[in-house]
Amino acid sequence: MELRLVQGSLLKKVLEAIKELVTDANFDCSGTGFSLQAMDSSHVALVALLLRSEGFEHYRCDRNLSMGMNLGNMAKMLRCAGNDDIITIKADDGSDTVTFMFESPNQDKIADFEMKLMDIDSEHLGIPDSEYQAIVRMPSSEFSRICKDLSSIGDTVIISVTKEGVKFSTAGDIGTANIVCRQNKTVDKPEESTIIEMQEPVSLTFALRYMNSFTKASPLSDQVTISLSSELPVVVEYKIGEMGYIRFYLAPKIEEDEEMKA
Amino acid sequence: MELRLVQGSLLKKVLEAIKELVTDANFDCSGTGFSLQAMDSSHVALVALLLRSEGFEHYRCDRNLSMGMNLGNMAKMLRCAGNDDIITIKADDGSDTVTFMFESPNQDKIADFEMKLMDIDSEHLGIPDSEYQAIVRMPSSEFSRICKDLSSIGDTVIISVTKEGVKFSTAGDIGTANIVCRQNKTVDKPEESTIIEMQEPVSLTFALRYMNSFTKASPLSDQVTISLSSELPVVVEYKIGEMGYIRFYLAPKIEEDEEMKA
Amino acid sequence: MELRLVQGSLLKKVLEAIKELVTDANFDCSGTGFSLQAMDSSHVALVALLLRSEGFEHYRCDRNLSMGMNLGNMAKMLRCAGNDDIITIKADDGSDTVTFMFESPNQDKIADFEMKLMDIDSEHLGIPDSEYQAIVRMPSSEFSRICKDLSSIGDTVIISVTKEGVKFSTAGDIGTANIVCRQNKTVDKPEESTIIEMQEPVSLTFALRYMNSFTKASPLSDQVTISLSSELPVVVEYKIGEMGYIRFYLAPKIEEDEEMKA
Repeated sequence: MELRLVQGSLLKKVLEAIKELVTDANFDCSGTGFSLQAMDSSHVALVALLLRSEGFEHYRCDRNLSMGMNLGNMAKMLRCAGNDDIITIKADDGSDTVTFMFESPNQDKIADFEMKLMDIDSEHLGIPDSEYQAIVRMPSSEFSRICKDLSSIGDTVIISVTKEGVKFSTAGDIGTANIVCRQNKTVDKPEESTIIEMQEPVSLTFALRYMNSFTKASPLSDQVTISLSSELPVVVEYKIGEMGYIRFYLAPKIEEDEEMKA
Repeated sequence: MELRLVQGSLLKKVLEAIKELVTDANFDCSGTGFSLQAMDSSHVALVALLLRSEGFEHYRCDRNLSMGMNLGNMAKMLRCAGNDDIITIKADDGSDTVTFMFESPNQDKIADFEMKLMDIDSEHLGIPDSEYQAIVRMPSSEFSRICKDLSSIGDTVIISVTKEGVKFSTAGDIGTANIVCRQNKTVDKPEESTIIEMQEPVSLTFALRYMNSFTKASPLSDQVTISLSSELPVVVEYKIGEMGYIRFYLAPKIEEDEEMKA
Repeated sequence: MELRLVQGSLLKKVLEAIKELVTDANFDCSGTGFSLQAMDSSHVALVALLLRSEGFEHYRCDRNLSMGMNLGNMAKMLRCAGNDDIITIKADDGSDTVTFMFESPNQDKIADFEMKLMDIDSEHLGIPDSEYQAIVRMPSSEFSRICKDLSSIGDTVIISVTKEGVKFSTAGDIGTANIVCRQNKTVDKPEESTIIEMQEPVSLTFALRYMNSFTKASPLSDQVTISLSSELPVVVEYKIGEMGYIRFYLAPKIEEDEEMKA
């Protein structure tokens, strides 16, 4: 296996995005691409990563390979790559190590980091494509700021979508907070737009702790997509350039008095 | 009561300036303006804040209102306002909550933070206008740097004013330090000037810990005014735009051998 | 003694460079210049500093003087100097204090910091000029980055020089790392060049902890020079403008299986 990624900073950002949530995970390499699916350590949230083979300058994968890695150690090694470095991931069949090679743009500096692989039991969950009641696309920095701000007040966020906008609410000992973002199809700066596709209004409650972890992926993309349905886990998706995505899945909280109302 | 402040960042900076010194305090709203007077938690320093009604875009206050707030919690909420946001403070008569509304400049994002009020006993001290022996106006960043630098050597600062300049001195286990700032009426950059109005020379000793707390107000103003008299608390004043001020009052330390000399 | 250094920031950087490694040391003042030689607190590494008299705007030293200083305290005082300040070091014969005077460029602010001297026993080691098997000159930021990166993997670094380049290697629990920097005589930006002068190939092992301490001197110079010989301590040298240098000496580690091979 040998995968050469010219924009190596993407892989650095991917690791920074998920290493807090997931400790150990199997990376799967196949003809389709380089991917990962893993539950967070408390088995509440699910992360799915895909880097399509077309996105690599060079992609050789003779047979499907699953490599167990400690993401903290992998992040440590990738942090040693420069932001402009080309990163190549190499593994031999049956080897118990993987090699990350970092080449500086002018080829003056070449680094090889070899990491031990680990055996990790995991089952791959099939995630069906679903229809969502509401899909919100908004600036990832805005979503990140809102989750952080609300965390200073409460532990959970209620996300409510109507045609006019999306509302984020929380409550805690010191008071309550509501933040409304209006739909805004700014034409000249698409990365700053907030766009809402709604089949029907939806209002769901989530743990802010996980939402805040998901926003660690913000450096990967200017926009985040939040897909909501009352019966389904929310999907928080960040595109990775043209080559793939990170998707975070989190089940809504069923609050007691919400159940009463239902 | 409804007060609309276009330059919301001023209120953010006010809270950052005083929240370390004062834990809980009553904000008073009257026809004159929005104000606060409070002792620090160790009852040594006094803070007085005034934001005049004319400085608000909209100022409605039907009858005088005193609202007890925890400044740490208030600062937490204000930190959720963007630096360019318009902030509106709202309270209903007899309500036990206050609402802070933050509007982004383009009205895309509107946030409401509701905070519980508290009952706080406090008496308002009348602070008489006084004549001071010496008044020093200097760059707030310079004053802040000097207090911080001297804190690495000693615990107290002696501020001595003569016609030529102002001297800040300290002593500690590792040695002594003297910093002299000369009068300098720079015409082209008034915010960098150091101006001394002196009736008679004065030399007073203060705890650096409090001085360092006061300098947290530096982001509010390029200049700080320090008013000194041997029989009076020092006044360290930062203007808040055209609309008001924060004033810190601190009694000088009476050193034993200074008393002897006197 | 009175030494006036227009580019005071150099002295600030010198202290930041060595204060972590050396706690107390004698500064020696003679006709040649202002110098220091000291072992680190664990008596493994040696620091030698020289600031030649010609580099000072004014240099008066009537007779040789050795002044024992606590470098942590000295660094505290120098941190109070502005980056553009002129620094003057003053000491009277037989005095038990030294004075650091900081003048701001426009002479508006003048500070005197007086520090107590201490008696420190030390013997001055004669360091003979040696021939080295290999001398590597490379960007100091690059060397610093490499030492920091390798520290996240292992505790020691093997530095191996060949005609083509210099290799830095380490190994630890999570894996291994090799970083190769190729010779690169970039003409247009000499500060980014990597130049290798080699008599014969050499490969030596050092503790990364010390190498990382040495790289604290990187702000002093764009380039670092690493001189290696199998029988000698490595010399890591940073030039201080045109006026002197800091040199760090560290004995190689003799690994057991390396001894076997030898």
